[in-house]
Amino acid sequence: MSPTPHEVALSTDLYELTMAASYHTLGMQGKAVFSLYVRKLPPNRSFLVVAGIAEALRYLSQLRFDADALAYLRSLPVLPREFVDSLADFRFTGDVWAVREGTVLFPDEPILEVEAPILQAQLIETVVLNAIHYPSLVATKAARCRIAAPGKTLVDFGLRRTPSLDAGLAAARAAYLAGFASTSNVLAGEIYGIPVTGTVAHSFIEAFPSELEAFRAFARTYPGDPVLLIDTYDTLRGAQHAVQVARELRAEGRRVRAVRLDSGDLIALSYQVRRILDEAGFPEIEIFASGGLDEYALAEFTRAGAPIDGFGVGSRLGTSDDAPLVDMAYKLVEYAGHPALKLSTGKQTLVGAKQVWRHTAENGRYDGDVIAARDEAPPGPEWRPLLQPVMRGGQVLELPSLAVLRAEHLAEMERLPEALRRIDRVEPYPVQLSPVLRARQQDAVTMIRTREGL
Amino acid sequence: MSPTPHEVALSTDLYELTMAASYHTLGMQGKAVFSLYVRKLPPNRSFLVVAGIAEALRYLSQLRFDADALAYLRSLPVLPREFVDSLADFRFTGDVWAVREGTVLFPDEPILEVEAPILQAQLIETVVLNAIHYPSLVATKAARCRIAAPGKTLVDFGLRRTPSLDAGLAAARAAYLAGFASTSNVLAGEIYGIPVTGTVAHSFIEAFPSELEAFRAFARTYPGDPVLLIDTYDTLRGAQHAVQVARELRAEGRRVRAVRLDSGDLIALSYQVRRILDEAGFPEIEIFASGGLDEYALAEFTRAGAPIDGFGVGSRLGTSDDAPLVDMAYKLVEYAGHPALKLSTGKQTLVGAKQVWRHTAENGRYDGDVIAARDEAPPGPEWRPLLQPVMRGGQVLELPSLAVLRAEHLAEMERLPEALRRIDRVEPYPVQLSPVLRARQQDAVTMIRTREGL
Repeated sequence: MSPTPHEVALSTDLYELTMAASYHTLGMQGKAVFSLYVRKLPPNRSFLVVAGIAEALRYLSQLRFDADALAYLRSLPVLPREFVDSLADFRFTGDVWAVREGTVLFPDEPILEVEAPILQAQLIETVVLNAIHYPSLVATKAARCRIAAPGKTLVDFGLRRTPSLDAGLAAARAAYLAGFASTSNVLAGEIYGIPVTGTVAHSFIEAFPSELEAFRAFARTYPGDPVLLIDTYDTLRGAQHAVQVARELRAEGRRVRAVRLDSGDLIALSYQVRRILDEAGFPEIEIFASGGLDEYALAEFTRAGAPIDGFGVGSRLGTSDDAPLVDMAYKLVEYAGHPALKLSTGKQTLVGAKQVWRHTAENGRYDGDVIAARDEAPPGPEWRPLLQPVMRGGQVLELPSLAVLRAEHLAEMERLPEALRRIDRVEPYPVQLSPVLRARQQDAVTMIRTREGL
Repeated sequence: MSPTPHEVALSTDLYELTMAASYHTLGMQGKAVFSLYVRKLPPNRSFLVVAGIAEALRYLSQLRFDADALAYLRSLPVLPREFVDSLADFRFTGDVWAVREGTVLFPDEPILEVEAPILQAQLIETVVLNAIHYPSLVATKAARCRIAAPGKTLVDFGLRRTPSLDAGLAAARAAYLAGFASTSNVLAGEIYGIPVTGTVAHSFIEAFPSELEAFRAFARTYPGDPVLLIDTYDTLRGAQHAVQVARELRAEGRRVRAVRLDSGDLIALSYQVRRILDEAGFPEIEIFASGGLDEYALAEFTRAGAPIDGFGVGSRLGTSDDAPLVDMAYKLVEYAGHPALKLSTGKQTLVGAKQVWRHTAENGRYDGDVIAARDEAPPGPEWRPLLQPVMRGGQVLELPSLAVLRAEHLAEMERLPEALRRIDRVEPYPVQLSPVLRARQQDAVTMIRTREGL
């Protein structure tokens, strides 16, 4: 979707502006480095799939304070007039390093690092966090759904209960990035080229004098092979009606593509419906299920061997309802060449610009990461750096297409250690600090504790 | 924020369009009535505070298919060309009834009802649900925060981790509607006139050679009475630094307004910091706390009598993290004068256009609701109807200002039964069906079961 530059500029916590005002008044123009990372994963997650980087960069390149924004800011007594005037010329001119969208990451590993004059690097905090937090949660949940239902067709049905239309668009993109096959969200189809799918709701069935007449009317008017929703009144009776319509269509050389179940005991019903379809001579009609699904439900279907070919996953995906929040932070790690960090309980940050190196074992699986200072040499030949420049001097560098990112992500998931490819328990993944980073970190802590008399 | 008419039109599940295409091809123009309601509340909620109605109505009045939207839809093989062409003239021309935003509602009670030709009433399903689902969850959580921290100043800090910038704007509005005092979200200040507040982050403190110098720099450059963030390195040392700056400001006739704690054991620290401030002769400096707070944390502070004057509530509010989802549905209840409903397991709908009547007992508290057919007389003189017309013939009727809605909501919360004004357990509220509605419902179920041979 498209927040305007005005909306991007004002979609900020006021304190970004009060801090910027102080930096402006004090003439502080030193270069700051900020890291975006997760402090810890939600209790039921072994990894995070990163998404939302492209949107964050779009915000950075669009951020402008137009006349209306300046007029509103002048009305706030906490912002000096001269500072607000200076915002008319504000442009983000910094550099950004980031991992590829679709990358699997772990706590403390930078997702993105920003280097810019401190006023700029600070001012973008809110929009950068906002752009990446939610899509990463949805991509992570979508990846878990794929783990739980290997080989099944997964469709994003989330839009109606995502937290906004914008969020619905981001969720559709994140789910597709993580391997979903299609979405119900038409705008996501237009903007991102994601395949869009969908047929009818219960209300359609109810608007006709009977279920059978509704099926016939839909089959008559729908230009493709219809999917029939069979649970409005009674799922097994609905399956028989679907068979009847399939016979009528066969006489015309057409077919029913699938039936959809949306309520009841989906495992038991899927077996019964499969039998009805098979015995009637329609083994090619697929069964599609929806209704409050998530990775845990999908895993049950997989365990039960339920004869279901595809799933619509909606509200629980679009809200990441079992992990709606991750402790993702954007923290100053260096200012004017000096390391910066806070010592607050449980919230220590890793100083300086960093790189994450990932090792692939001989079996082709990842077996450990090292977080290093960015100016260090690689730990060895088998190590791959995850952070790359994505913006230089405020200009977005060429980014891979969504299709490429999706393919990379799917390959990445195959290389995860098997222990992490489960949804029923949380497994640690080995992440170490390089000796250089560890030494710099310790030096910085000592320096600050000494300086503050602690 | 402002999704364009194009974005509103395409932010829909594809099946709304495939159904509309069938209605168009079949020439079905009968009037449909749809009800929006929650089937059940989240397990940890006793009530729902409704929000998002104004946004839903804005979507309805803006929805247009422009040339680009039509071009994209023509590229989808499942939509007949002639139907897509007809969308060029699409306007929502229906009537809408709704409760006031800020109203407390319970399961099965209509939040909103739409009456329009079936194609129109169906096509808007996705955006109407989307507009109301998330803001209602945030308003509900905000109301619970107020219950947990009576008399305290509550500030929305959610924007950085809301699921989109749009969602952040909606959350700021919902929190203010439910009694929050202010927001950090500058755009929400501009658009809704909500007071905006905020001062500095840890990064500001870290950008200076020492905490004390950072406090002095901020005090020198900030045009008002500063709030000092004191937990970057050590909260108690930070409190002493705040005292020192407060003394220096006093010499200039200025003051420190508050200190903010953002980590550690906030209850213990608030007592220690209060003592430091009081003993130094600054009883007027307030203590403000933030950092992962929600209604459960606020209730602990209240129980402990922690000397904290205000709270920033952020990520857990903006994601409604303990209830990110409510089973809210938009269902056909009547078509062409005939009642409609589905019989799916656990998902029965109440037929026909409805009204909700609320009774106030002699003690001034609500003591029960009746869901009735809309054409029924009131149950009695002490009963107030909750649904009112808000849109006629596609035109939005005059809606109350946010300030009025907020005042009404705060009064409404005072009239809730005391048992419902708790956050630690769920209490039922008596909601009955009127005898007329119950009879019509039973007749409709019997009619459909007979018709479908069940």
